[in-house]
Amino acid sequence: MSKLGALDDVTAPGCCAPLSGPLMAADEAAELSKVFKALSDPVRLRLLNLIAAHEGGEACVCDLTGPFELTAPTISHHLKVLRQAGLIEGERRGTWVYYRAVPEALTRLSGLFALPALTA
Amino acid sequence: MSKLGALDDVTAPGCCAPLSGPLMAADEAAELSKVFKALSDPVRLRLLNLIAAHEGGEACVCDLTGPFELTAPTISHHLKVLRQAGLIEGERRGTWVYYRAVPEALTRLSGLFALPALTA
Repeated sequence: MSKLGALDDVTAPGCCAPLSGPLMAADEAAELSKVFKALSDPVRLRLLNLIAAHEGGEACVCDLTGPFELTAPTISHHLKVLRQAGLIEGERRGTWVYYRAVPEALTRLSGLFALPALTA
Repeated sequence: MSKLGALDDVTAPGCCAPLSGPLMAADEAAELSKVFKALSDPVRLRLLNLIAAHEGGEACVCDLTGPFELTAPTISHHLKVLRQAGLIEGERRGTWVYYRAVPEALTRLSGLFALPALTA
């Protein structure tokens, strides 16, 4: 499976380490910054939320245009950015593409912000 | 305490909800996207990492310039962006400013990416 894009290296050293843990290498920081760039847009955040919260964790692209006053090509562009960042993956079935969040990617980010040493 | 900036509304509805949970309001997505914008730079990610990983969870600004080939004003700019996003807070003690990560902010982000429904 190499669909995870920017986040596919989840078994590499540094994967899932918290920010309070080992120091990040410059290349790891560069790669992670791209993931956050993908998340730094309100429409993309809401798309990721819609997909992750959808029944079965999967949403048809046909369900994703309604909530926004945006054209289908604009939604497609945002989905592409999320996909290239490894945050979602899509699968064509018949007429439509179905998207789901990539659990490894979200788990990595969740772990990054986990700060046991600071929550005491 | 109102030092948390963009993330100070941690008791608002929607705080700490996972992406797989309730749908985000447009204004919440807009506010969160600014936090991710602050994280979308490799130097800022490494600064946050250095601060959070520092002994006692606190780092003097004097410890934060050494690891980068950047001028002090550039580092100061990046620290300001992290502070304005509510990710770190600083306190002047004598000559130096000391920074620490804001635990509520990081916990909120950790919770955002927690996807229990998808990790089965």
